[in-house]
Amino acid sequence: MNRDLLFKQIQEKSSYLCVGLDTDPERIPRHLLREKDPVFAFNKQIIDSTEQYAVAYKPNIAFYEALGPAGWESLQKTVEYIPDHLFTIADAKRGDIGNTSRLYAKAFFETMPFDSITVAPYMGKDSVTPFLGFENKWVILLGHTSNPGSMDFQTLQVNNQYLYEEVIRKSSEWAGPDQLMYVVGATRADKIKKIRELVPEYFFLVPGVGAQGGDLEAVSRLGFNDHCGLLVNSSRSIIYASSEKDFAAKAGNAARALQEDMSDFLNQFL
Amino acid sequence: MNRDLLFKQIQEKSSYLCVGLDTDPERIPRHLLREKDPVFAFNKQIIDSTEQYAVAYKPNIAFYEALGPAGWESLQKTVEYIPDHLFTIADAKRGDIGNTSRLYAKAFFETMPFDSITVAPYMGKDSVTPFLGFENKWVILLGHTSNPGSMDFQTLQVNNQYLYEEVIRKSSEWAGPDQLMYVVGATRADKIKKIRELVPEYFFLVPGVGAQGGDLEAVSRLGFNDHCGLLVNSSRSIIYASSEKDFAAKAGNAARALQEDMSDFLNQFL
Repeated sequence: MNRDLLFKQIQEKSSYLCVGLDTDPERIPRHLLREKDPVFAFNKQIIDSTEQYAVAYKPNIAFYEALGPAGWESLQKTVEYIPDHLFTIADAKRGDIGNTSRLYAKAFFETMPFDSITVAPYMGKDSVTPFLGFENKWVILLGHTSNPGSMDFQTLQVNNQYLYEEVIRKSSEWAGPDQLMYVVGATRADKIKKIRELVPEYFFLVPGVGAQGGDLEAVSRLGFNDHCGLLVNSSRSIIYASSEKDFAAKAGNAARALQEDMSDFLNQFL
Repeated sequence: MNRDLLFKQIQEKSSYLCVGLDTDPERIPRHLLREKDPVFAFNKQIIDSTEQYAVAYKPNIAFYEALGPAGWESLQKTVEYIPDHLFTIADAKRGDIGNTSRLYAKAFFETMPFDSITVAPYMGKDSVTPFLGFENKWVILLGHTSNPGSMDFQTLQVNNQYLYEEVIRKSSEWAGPDQLMYVVGATRADKIKKIRELVPEYFFLVPGVGAQGGDLEAVSRLGFNDHCGLLVNSSRSIIYASSEKDFAAKAGNAARALQEDMSDFLNQFL
Protein backbone atom coordinates (compact mmCIF):
# COMPACT_ATOMS: atom_id res chain seq x y z
CA MET A 1 0.00 0.00 0.00
CA ASN A 2 1.27 3.49 -0.79
CA ARG A 3 1.05 6.61 1.35
CA ASP A 4 -1.77 8.22 -0.65
CA LEU A 5 -4.00 5.16 -0.28
CA LEU A 6 -3.27 5.02 3.43
CA PHE A 7 -4.19 8.69 3.84
CA LYS A 8 -7.34 8.17 1.76
CA GLN A 9 -8.41 5.40 4.18
CA ILE A 10 -7.74 7.68 7.14
CA GLN A 11 -9.90 10.41 5.64
CA GLU A 12 -12.74 8.11 4.61
CA LYS A 13 -12.97 6.43 8.00
CA SER A 14 -11.99 9.45 10.12
CA SER A 15 -9.68 7.06 11.89
CA TYR A 16 -5.99 6.38 12.35
CA LEU A 17 -6.60 3.34 14.51
CA CYS A 18 -4.41 0.27 14.30
CA VAL A 19 -5.77 -2.83 16.02
CA GLY A 20 -3.03 -4.96 17.58
CA LEU A 21 -3.67 -8.67 17.21
CA ASP A 22 -1.78 -9.89 20.30
CA THR A 23 -3.81 -13.06 20.28
CA ASP A 24 -3.13 -15.34 23.23
CA PRO A 25 -4.91 -18.74 23.35
CA GLU A 26 -5.07 -18.40 27.13
CA ARG A 27 -7.03 -15.16 26.91
CA ILE A 28 -9.53 -15.84 24.14
CA PRO A 29 -13.10 -16.87 24.99
CA ARG A 30 -13.31 -20.52 26.02
CA HIS A 31 -15.94 -21.49 23.45
CA LEU A 32 -13.47 -20.76 20.63
CA LEU A 33 -11.14 -23.52 21.82
CA ARG A 34 -13.48 -26.02 20.14
CA GLU A 35 -12.61 -24.50 16.75
CA LYS A 36 -9.98 -26.15 14.57
CA ASP A 37 -7.85 -22.99 14.66
CA PRO A 38 -8.98 -20.96 17.70
CA VAL A 39 -6.47 -18.15 17.11
CA PHE A 40 -7.65 -17.56 13.56
CA ALA A 41 -11.30 -17.94 14.58
CA PHE A 42 -10.77 -15.21 17.18
CA ASN A 43 -8.88 -12.90 14.81
CA LYS A 44 -11.48 -13.33 12.07
CA GLN A 45 -14.31 -12.17 14.32
CA ILE A 46 -12.21 -9.32 15.72
CA ILE A 47 -11.41 -8.14 12.20
CA ASP A 48 -15.04 -8.41 11.09
CA SER A 49 -16.26 -6.36 14.03
CA THR A 50 -13.55 -3.66 13.96
CA GLU A 51 -12.61 -3.12 10.33
CA GLN A 52 -15.04 -0.25 9.77
CA TYR A 53 -13.27 1.69 12.56
CA ALA A 54 -9.65 0.77 11.82
CA VAL A 55 -7.17 1.51 9.05
CA ALA A 56 -4.49 -1.00 10.08
CA TYR A 57 -3.94 -4.33 11.82
CA LYS A 58 -0.78 -5.30 13.63
CA PRO A 59 -0.27 -8.96 14.55
CA ASN A 60 2.39 -9.22 17.25
CA ILE A 61 4.51 -11.99 15.80
CA ALA A 62 5.74 -13.36 19.14
CA PHE A 63 2.23 -14.52 20.01
CA TYR A 64 2.13 -16.71 16.89
CA GLU A 65 5.76 -17.85 17.05
CA ALA A 66 5.25 -19.12 20.61
CA LEU A 67 2.73 -21.64 19.24
CA GLY A 68 5.17 -23.28 16.83
CA PRO A 69 4.26 -24.14 13.22
CA ALA A 70 0.51 -24.02 14.01
CA GLY A 71 0.95 -20.40 15.07
CA TRP A 72 2.47 -19.54 11.71
CA GLU A 73 -0.52 -21.15 10.00
CA SER A 74 -2.85 -18.96 12.08
CA LEU A 75 -0.77 -15.89 11.25
CA GLN A 76 -0.76 -16.63 7.52
CA LYS A 77 -4.53 -17.13 7.48
CA THR A 78 -5.02 -13.93 9.49
CA VAL A 79 -2.97 -11.68 7.23
CA GLU A 80 -4.60 -13.18 4.15
CA TYR A 81 -8.05 -12.57 5.67
CA ILE A 82 -7.46 -8.87 6.34
CA PRO A 83 -9.03 -6.91 3.45
CA ASP A 84 -6.51 -5.45 1.00
CA HIS A 85 -7.49 -1.84 1.63
CA LEU A 86 -6.33 -2.15 5.26
CA PHE A 87 -2.67 -1.64 6.11
CA THR A 88 -0.97 -4.66 7.71
CA ILE A 89 1.99 -4.50 10.06
CA ALA A 90 4.12 -7.50 11.04
CA ASP A 91 5.26 -6.42 14.51
CA ALA A 92 8.36 -8.57 14.41
CA LYS A 93 11.22 -6.22 15.38
CA ARG A 94 13.62 -8.06 13.11
CA GLY A 95 17.03 -6.88 11.89
CA ASP A 96 20.21 -8.74 10.95
CA ILE A 97 23.09 -8.60 8.46
CA GLY A 98 22.15 -8.02 4.82
CA ASN A 99 21.61 -11.55 3.51
CA THR A 100 19.66 -12.48 6.64
CA SER A 101 17.46 -9.38 6.62
CA ARG A 102 16.65 -10.21 3.00
CA LEU A 103 15.21 -13.54 4.17
CA TYR A 104 13.15 -11.88 6.89
CA ALA A 105 11.82 -9.55 4.20
CA LYS A 106 10.96 -12.57 2.08
CA ALA A 107 9.16 -14.18 5.05
CA PHE A 108 6.91 -11.20 5.70
CA PHE A 109 6.57 -9.60 2.25
CA GLU A 110 6.50 -12.66 -0.04
CA THR A 111 5.67 -15.81 1.95
CA MET A 112 3.12 -13.65 3.78
CA PRO A 113 1.52 -10.55 2.23
CA PHE A 114 2.26 -7.96 4.95
CA ASP A 115 2.50 -4.30 3.94
CA SER A 116 5.12 -3.48 6.55
CA ILE A 117 7.39 -4.84 9.25
CA THR A 118 8.85 -3.33 12.41
CA VAL A 119 12.66 -3.36 12.42
CA ALA A 120 15.26 -2.74 15.16
CA PRO A 121 18.00 -0.26 14.27
CA TYR A 122 21.03 -1.44 16.28
CA MET A 123 22.79 -3.20 13.38
CA GLY A 124 22.56 -0.14 11.12
CA LYS A 125 21.89 0.58 7.47
CA ASP A 126 22.61 -2.76 5.81
CA SER A 127 20.27 -4.49 8.27
CA VAL A 128 17.42 -2.18 7.24
CA THR A 129 17.83 -1.59 3.50
CA PRO A 130 16.99 -5.19 2.41
CA PHE A 131 13.43 -4.53 3.61
CA LEU A 132 13.21 -1.45 1.36
CA GLY A 133 13.54 -3.24 -1.98
CA PHE A 134 9.84 -4.16 -2.27
CA GLU A 135 7.32 -1.93 -4.04
CA ASN A 136 4.73 -0.39 -1.70
CA LYS A 137 6.17 -2.27 1.29
CA TRP A 138 7.33 -0.40 4.36
CA VAL A 139 9.86 -0.50 7.16
CA ILE A 140 8.67 0.76 10.54
CA LEU A 141 11.90 1.43 12.41
CA LEU A 142 12.08 1.55 16.20
CA GLY A 143 12.64 5.18 17.13
CA HIS A 144 11.68 5.74 20.75
CA THR A 145 9.72 2.90 22.32
CA SER A 146 7.28 3.12 25.22
CA ASN A 147 8.67 0.50 27.62
CA PRO A 148 10.73 1.24 30.76
CA GLY A 149 13.88 -0.10 29.06
CA SER A 150 13.61 2.61 26.43
CA MET A 151 15.51 4.78 28.93
CA ASP A 152 18.52 2.43 29.06
CA PHE A 153 20.09 3.21 25.68
CA GLN A 154 17.66 5.23 23.55
CA THR A 155 17.99 8.32 25.72
CA LEU A 156 21.79 8.30 25.96
CA GLN A 157 23.30 11.56 24.76
CA VAL A 158 25.14 11.37 21.42
CA ASN A 159 26.24 14.50 19.57
CA ASN A 160 24.16 16.66 21.94
CA GLN A 161 20.94 14.81 21.27
CA TYR A 162 19.27 11.58 22.30
CA LEU A 163 20.39 8.36 20.63
CA TYR A 164 16.85 7.84 19.32
CA GLU A 165 16.99 11.24 17.63
CA GLU A 166 20.26 10.28 15.93
CA VAL A 167 18.71 6.94 14.88
CA ILE A 168 15.74 8.76 13.34
CA ARG A 169 17.84 11.50 11.73
CA LYS A 170 20.37 9.13 10.16
CA SER A 171 17.86 6.50 9.03
CA SER A 172 15.72 9.17 7.35
CA GLU A 173 18.61 9.45 4.86
CA TRP A 174 18.08 5.79 3.89
CA ALA A 175 14.45 6.04 2.76
CA GLY A 176 11.72 8.61 2.30
CA PRO A 177 8.30 8.89 3.92
CA ASP A 178 6.79 6.59 1.27
CA GLN A 179 8.79 3.61 2.51
CA LEU A 180 9.74 4.32 6.10
CA MET A 181 7.82 5.01 9.31
CA TYR A 182 8.94 5.19 12.94
CA VAL A 183 7.77 3.60 16.16
CA VAL A 184 7.28 6.46 18.62
CA GLY A 185 5.95 5.61 22.07
CA ALA A 186 2.86 7.43 23.28
CA THR A 187 3.93 7.42 26.91
CA ARG A 188 6.31 10.23 25.91
CA ALA A 189 3.86 12.62 24.27
CA ASP A 190 6.11 15.55 25.13
CA LYS A 191 8.81 14.08 22.93
CA ILE A 192 6.60 13.53 19.90
CA LYS A 193 6.65 17.25 19.09
CA LYS A 194 10.43 17.24 18.79
CA ILE A 195 10.49 14.07 16.70
CA ARG A 196 7.80 15.55 14.43
CA GLU A 197 10.06 18.57 13.84
CA LEU A 198 12.96 16.23 13.01
CA VAL A 199 11.01 14.24 10.37
CA PRO A 200 7.94 16.27 9.38
CA GLU A 201 6.79 13.98 6.55
CA TYR A 202 7.04 10.51 8.08
CA PHE A 203 4.29 8.39 9.62
CA PHE A 204 4.66 7.35 13.26
CA LEU A 205 3.32 4.09 14.61
CA VAL A 206 2.32 4.89 18.17
CA PRO A 207 1.91 1.97 20.53
CA GLY A 208 0.91 2.42 24.12
CA VAL A 209 -2.56 3.91 23.92
CA GLY A 210 -4.79 1.73 26.06
CA ALA A 211 -3.18 -0.87 28.27
CA GLN A 212 0.22 0.85 28.25
CA GLY A 213 -1.19 4.31 29.09
CA GLY A 214 -0.62 7.36 26.90
CA ASP A 215 -2.69 10.35 25.98
CA LEU A 216 -4.40 10.21 22.60
CA GLU A 217 -5.34 13.88 22.55
CA ALA A 218 -1.78 15.11 23.19
CA VAL A 219 -0.26 12.58 20.81
CA SER A 220 -2.62 13.68 18.07
CA ARG A 221 -2.21 17.41 18.64
CA LEU A 222 1.57 17.18 18.69
CA GLY A 223 2.08 14.39 16.18
CA PHE A 224 -0.15 15.14 13.19
CA ASN A 225 1.28 16.24 9.88
CA ASP A 226 -0.66 17.13 6.72
CA HIS A 227 -1.11 13.41 5.86
CA CYS A 228 -2.24 12.73 9.44
CA GLY A 229 1.11 11.00 9.95
CA LEU A 230 -0.05 8.82 12.83
CA LEU A 231 -1.18 5.25 13.25
CA VAL A 232 -2.18 4.75 16.87
CA ASN A 233 -2.26 1.17 18.05
CA SER A 234 -4.48 -0.39 20.65
CA SER A 235 -4.33 -4.09 21.36
CA ARG A 236 -5.60 -5.51 24.63
CA SER A 237 -8.19 -2.83 25.38
CA ILE A 238 -9.92 -3.75 22.12
CA ILE A 239 -9.40 -7.45 21.57
CA TYR A 240 -9.93 -8.42 25.21
CA ALA A 241 -12.78 -5.99 25.88
CA SER A 242 -14.79 -9.08 26.84
CA SER A 243 -13.83 -12.68 27.48
CA GLU A 244 -17.38 -13.95 26.81
CA LYS A 245 -19.30 -14.82 23.67
CA ASP A 246 -19.92 -11.11 23.08
CA PHE A 247 -16.17 -10.47 22.66
CA ALA A 248 -16.41 -9.40 19.02
CA ALA A 249 -19.25 -6.95 19.62
CA LYS A 250 -17.43 -5.50 22.63
CA ALA A 251 -14.24 -5.20 20.59
CA GLY A 252 -16.20 -3.34 17.96
CA ASN A 253 -17.56 -0.97 20.61
CA ALA A 254 -14.07 -0.32 22.00
CA ALA A 255 -12.71 0.34 18.50
CA ARG A 256 -15.62 2.66 17.70
CA ALA A 257 -15.05 4.66 20.89
CA LEU A 258 -11.43 5.24 19.90
CA GLN A 259 -12.41 6.05 16.32
CA GLU A 260 -14.90 8.66 17.55
CA ASP A 261 -12.19 10.35 19.58
CA MET A 262 -9.89 10.21 16.56
CA SER A 263 -12.57 11.75 14.37
CA ASP A 264 -12.79 14.67 16.81
CA PHE A 265 -9.02 15.13 16.86
CA LEU A 266 -8.80 15.02 13.06
CA ASN A 267 -11.43 17.77 12.91
CA GLN A 268 -9.75 19.84 15.60
CA PHE A 269 -6.06 19.52 14.79
CA LEU A 270 -5.52 18.45 11.18
CA MET B 1 23.43 -26.19 29.43
CA ASN B 2 25.57 -24.51 32.10
CA ARG B 3 28.98 -22.86 31.69
CA ASP B 4 30.98 -25.72 33.23
CA LEU B 5 29.49 -28.26 30.82
CA LEU B 6 30.19 -25.96 27.89
CA PHE B 7 33.80 -25.53 28.96
CA LYS B 8 34.16 -29.30 29.48
CA GLN B 9 33.03 -29.83 25.87
CA ILE B 10 35.54 -27.26 24.67
CA GLN B 11 38.36 -29.03 26.52
CA GLU B 12 37.35 -32.53 25.43
CA LYS B 13 37.07 -31.60 21.76
CA SER B 14 39.81 -28.97 21.71
CA SER B 15 37.34 -26.85 19.83
CA TYR B 16 35.27 -23.72 20.27
CA LEU B 17 33.63 -24.07 16.89
CA CYS B 18 30.01 -23.17 16.32
CA VAL B 19 28.52 -24.36 13.03
CA GLY B 20 26.01 -21.94 11.58
CA LEU B 21 23.03 -23.66 9.98
CA ASP B 22 22.12 -20.98 7.42
CA THR B 23 20.35 -23.57 5.36
CA ASP B 24 19.00 -22.25 2.06
CA PRO B 25 16.97 -24.62 -0.16
CA GLU B 26 18.47 -22.90 -3.20
CA ARG B 27 22.03 -23.75 -2.13
CA ILE B 28 21.71 -27.32 -0.90
CA PRO B 29 22.69 -30.22 -3.20
CA ARG B 30 20.02 -30.91 -5.80
CA HIS B 31 19.59 -34.59 -4.92
CA LEU B 32 18.26 -33.63 -1.48
CA LEU B 33 15.26 -31.88 -3.03
CA ARG B 34 13.68 -35.31 -3.52
CA GLU B 35 13.53 -35.74 0.27
CA LYS B 36 10.30 -35.01 2.13
CA ASP B 37 12.07 -32.31 4.18
CA PRO B 38 15.18 -31.28 2.25
CA VAL B 39 16.26 -28.68 4.81
CA PHE B 40 16.20 -31.14 7.68
CA ALA B 41 17.82 -33.87 5.53
CA PHE B 42 20.67 -31.46 4.80
CA ASN B 43 21.06 -30.34 8.42
CA LYS B 44 21.02 -33.92 9.69
CA GLN B 45 23.93 -34.92 7.48
CA ILE B 46 25.83 -31.72 8.29
CA ILE B 47 25.39 -32.36 12.01
CA ASP B 48 26.43 -36.01 11.70
CA SER B 49 29.61 -35.11 9.84
CA THR B 50 30.65 -32.11 11.96
CA GLU B 51 29.57 -32.86 15.53
CA GLN B 52 32.91 -34.35 16.55
CA TYR B 53 34.62 -31.04 15.69
CA ALA B 54 32.00 -28.61 16.99
CA VAL B 55 30.67 -27.59 20.40
CA ALA B 56 27.69 -25.56 19.20
CA TYR B 57 25.17 -25.19 16.39
CA LYS B 58 23.50 -21.96 15.41
CA PRO B 59 20.48 -22.12 13.11
CA ASN B 60 19.89 -18.70 11.56
CA ILE B 61 16.17 -18.36 12.14
CA ALA B 62 15.50 -16.14 9.10
CA PHE B 63 16.36 -19.02 6.76
CA TYR B 64 13.59 -21.14 8.30
CA GLU B 65 11.09 -18.34 8.77
CA ALA B 66 11.32 -17.46 5.06
CA LEU B 67 9.90 -20.91 4.27
CA GLY B 68 6.69 -20.43 6.25
CA PRO B 69 5.26 -23.13 8.58
CA ALA B 70 7.26 -25.87 6.83
CA GLY B 71 10.45 -24.02 7.74
CA TRP B 72 9.47 -24.07 11.41
CA GLU B 73 8.92 -27.82 11.17
CA SER B 74 12.43 -28.21 9.75
CA LEU B 75 13.85 -26.00 12.49
CA GLN B 76 12.09 -27.91 15.25
CA LYS B 77 13.34 -31.26 13.89
CA THR B 78 16.85 -29.84 13.56
CA VAL B 79 17.15 -28.55 17.11
CA GLU B 80 15.68 -31.78 18.49
CA TYR B 81 18.17 -33.80 16.43
CA ILE B 82 21.24 -31.97 17.77
CA PRO B 83 22.71 -34.10 20.60
CA ASP B 84 22.08 -32.71 24.09
CA HIS B 85 25.75 -32.22 24.91
CA LEU B 86 26.07 -29.66 22.12
CA PHE B 87 25.13 -26.04 22.76
CA THR B 88 22.32 -24.71 20.57
CA ILE B 89 21.84 -21.08 19.59
CA ALA B 90 18.69 -19.65 18.04
CA ASP B 91 20.14 -16.79 16.01
CA ALA B 92 16.94 -14.81 16.05
CA LYS B 93 17.94 -11.32 17.21
CA ARG B 94 14.63 -10.85 18.97
CA GLY B 95 13.73 -8.22 21.58
CA ASP B 96 10.47 -6.50 22.47
CA ILE B 97 8.53 -5.19 25.48
CA GLY B 98 8.32 -7.52 28.49
CA ASN B 99 5.19 -9.55 27.80
CA THR B 100 6.22 -9.99 24.16
CA SER B 101 9.82 -11.01 24.93
CA ARG B 102 8.37 -13.60 27.31
CA LEU B 103 6.57 -15.18 24.36
CA TYR B 104 9.70 -15.20 22.23
CA ALA B 105 11.44 -16.92 25.14
CA LYS B 106 8.63 -19.46 25.24
CA ALA B 107 8.98 -20.05 21.48
CA PHE B 108 12.69 -20.82 21.63
CA PHE B 109 13.14 -22.26 25.14
CA GLU B 110 9.90 -24.23 25.60
CA THR B 111 8.21 -24.88 22.24
CA MET B 112 11.73 -25.56 20.93
CA PRO B 113 14.59 -26.77 23.16
CA PHE B 114 17.26 -24.16 22.33
CA ASP B 115 19.93 -23.43 24.95
CA SER B 116 20.25 -19.79 23.95
CA ILE B 117 18.92 -17.00 21.77
CA THR B 118 20.51 -13.89 20.28
CA VAL B 119 18.79 -10.69 21.44
CA ALA B 120 19.00 -7.06 20.24
CA PRO B 121 19.60 -4.46 22.98
CA TYR B 122 17.87 -1.32 21.68
CA MET B 123 14.73 -1.68 23.82
CA GLY B 124 16.71 -2.08 27.05
CA LYS B 125 16.50 -4.13 30.20
CA ASP B 126 12.86 -5.22 30.27
CA SER B 127 13.20 -6.52 26.71
CA VAL B 128 16.09 -8.77 27.75
CA THR B 129 15.27 -10.00 31.25
CA PRO B 130 12.27 -12.20 30.24
CA PHE B 131 14.77 -14.45 28.45
CA LEU B 132 16.77 -14.84 31.68
CA GLY B 133 14.12 -16.61 33.73
CA PHE B 134 14.90 -20.11 32.42
CA GLU B 135 17.36 -22.44 34.14
CA ASN B 136 20.50 -23.10 32.12
CA LYS B 137 19.20 -21.02 29.21
CA TRP B 138 21.20 -18.10 27.86
CA VAL B 139 20.84 -14.70 26.28
CA ILE B 140 23.46 -13.78 23.68
CA LEU B 141 23.15 -10.02 23.43
CA LEU B 142 24.33 -8.06 20.40
CA GLY B 143 27.42 -6.17 21.48
CA HIS B 144 29.44 -5.15 18.43
CA THR B 145 28.39 -6.84 15.20
CA SER B 146 30.56 -7.48 12.15
CA ASN B 147 28.48 -5.93 9.38
CA PRO B 148 29.14 -2.53 7.72
CA GLY B 149 26.09 -1.03 9.48
CA SER B 150 27.69 -1.74 12.85
CA MET B 151 29.45 1.62 12.36
CA ASP B 152 26.16 3.56 12.08
CA PHE B 153 25.09 3.53 15.73
CA GLN B 154 27.22 1.05 17.70
CA THR B 155 30.34 3.20 17.44
CA LEU B 156 28.70 6.50 18.40
CA GLN B 157 30.40 8.11 21.37
CA VAL B 158 28.40 8.05 24.61
CA ASN B 159 29.97 8.98 27.95
CA ASN B 160 33.45 8.93 26.35
CA GLN B 161 33.12 5.39 25.06
CA TYR B 162 31.46 3.59 22.17
CA LEU B 163 27.74 2.86 22.42
CA TYR B 164 28.48 -0.88 22.18
CA GLU B 165 30.76 -0.60 25.22
CA GLU B 166 27.97 1.10 27.16
CA VAL B 167 25.53 -1.63 26.02
CA ILE B 168 27.92 -4.33 27.24
CA ARG B 169 28.78 -2.56 30.47
CA LYS B 170 25.21 -1.81 31.46
CA SER B 171 23.75 -5.18 30.42
CA SER B 172 26.43 -7.02 32.41
CA GLU B 173 24.62 -5.66 35.47
CA TRP B 174 21.49 -7.56 34.41
CA ALA B 175 22.97 -11.08 34.37
CA GLY B 176 26.20 -12.87 35.11
CA PRO B 177 28.46 -14.93 32.84
CA ASP B 178 26.38 -18.07 33.51
CA GLN B 179 23.37 -16.62 31.72
CA LEU B 180 24.63 -13.96 29.35
CA MET B 181 27.05 -13.89 26.41
CA TYR B 182 27.80 -11.22 23.82
CA VAL B 183 27.97 -11.15 20.04
CA VAL B 184 31.35 -9.62 19.19
CA GLY B 185 32.28 -9.38 15.51
CA ALA B 186 35.56 -10.91 14.39
CA THR B 187 36.20 -8.31 11.73
CA ARG B 188 37.19 -6.01 14.59
CA ALA B 189 39.79 -8.18 16.32
CA ASP B 190 41.53 -5.05 17.64
CA LYS B 191 38.40 -4.23 19.61
CA ILE B 192 38.01 -7.67 21.19
CA LYS B 193 40.85 -6.97 23.60
CA LYS B 194 39.09 -3.93 25.00
CA ILE B 195 35.76 -5.73 25.30
CA ARG B 196 37.50 -8.63 27.05
CA GLU B 197 38.87 -6.17 29.62
CA LEU B 198 35.36 -4.77 30.12
CA VAL B 199 33.73 -8.18 30.79
CA PRO B 200 36.49 -10.68 31.61
CA GLU B 201 34.22 -13.58 32.55
CA TYR B 202 31.65 -13.60 29.74
CA PHE B 203 31.57 -15.79 26.64
CA PHE B 204 31.62 -14.07 23.24
CA LEU B 205 29.89 -15.48 20.20
CA VAL B 206 32.10 -14.44 17.31
CA PRO B 207 30.53 -14.48 13.85
CA GLY B 208 32.44 -13.54 10.78
CA VAL B 209 35.19 -16.15 10.53
CA GLY B 210 34.98 -17.62 7.06
CA ALA B 211 32.76 -15.93 4.51
CA GLN B 212 32.69 -12.62 6.40
CA GLY B 213 36.51 -12.46 6.88
CA GLY B 214 38.15 -12.18 10.27
CA ASP B 215 41.32 -13.52 11.79
CA LEU B 216 40.91 -16.56 14.01
CA GLU B 217 44.41 -16.36 15.47
CA ALA B 218 44.06 -12.75 16.59
CA VAL B 219 40.53 -13.25 17.86
CA SER B 220 41.65 -16.23 19.94
CA ARG B 221 44.79 -14.59 21.32
CA LEU B 222 42.93 -11.43 22.33
CA GLY B 223 39.60 -12.95 23.28
CA PHE B 224 40.32 -16.00 25.44
CA ASN B 225 39.59 -16.03 29.15
CA ASP B 226 40.25 -18.90 31.57
CA HIS B 227 37.05 -20.69 30.43
CA CYS B 228 38.06 -20.18 26.78
CA GLY B 229 35.27 -17.60 26.59
CA LEU B 230 34.83 -17.83 22.83
CA LEU B 231 32.45 -19.57 20.48
CA VAL B 232 33.57 -18.87 16.93
CA ASN B 233 30.96 -19.37 14.27
CA SER B 234 31.42 -20.45 10.71
CA SER B 235 28.44 -21.02 8.45
CA ARG B 236 28.81 -20.96 4.70
CA SER B 237 32.45 -22.05 4.50
CA ILE B 238 31.47 -25.29 6.25
CA ILE B 239 27.94 -26.12 5.15
CA TYR B 240 28.47 -25.11 1.53
CA ALA B 241 32.00 -26.53 1.20
CA SER B 242 30.58 -28.64 -1.63
CA SER B 243 27.30 -28.54 -3.52
CA GLU B 244 27.61 -32.17 -4.66
CA LYS B 245 26.77 -35.50 -3.06
CA ASP B 246 29.99 -35.28 -1.03
CA PHE B 247 28.73 -32.14 0.77
CA ALA B 248 28.64 -33.74 4.21
CA ALA B 249 32.15 -35.17 3.99
CA LYS B 250 33.48 -31.84 2.70
CA ALA B 251 31.68 -30.03 5.52
CA GLY B 252 33.33 -32.39 7.98
CA ASN B 253 36.73 -31.62 6.45
CA ALA B 254 36.14 -27.88 6.66
CA ALA B 255 35.03 -28.18 10.29
CA ARG B 256 38.03 -30.35 11.14
CA ALA B 257 40.44 -27.83 9.60
CA LEU B 258 39.01 -25.09 11.79
CA GLN B 259 39.04 -27.37 14.84
CA GLU B 260 42.73 -28.17 14.27
CA ASP B 261 43.57 -24.47 14.20
CA MET B 262 41.49 -23.99 17.35
CA SER B 263 43.32 -26.83 19.07
CA ASP B 264 46.62 -25.08 18.32
CA PHE B 265 45.36 -21.77 19.65
CA LEU B 266 43.99 -23.38 22.83
CA ASN B 267 47.44 -24.92 23.42
CA GLN B 268 49.24 -21.68 22.66
CA PHE B 269 47.09 -19.04 24.31
CA LEU B 270 44.87 -20.57 26.99
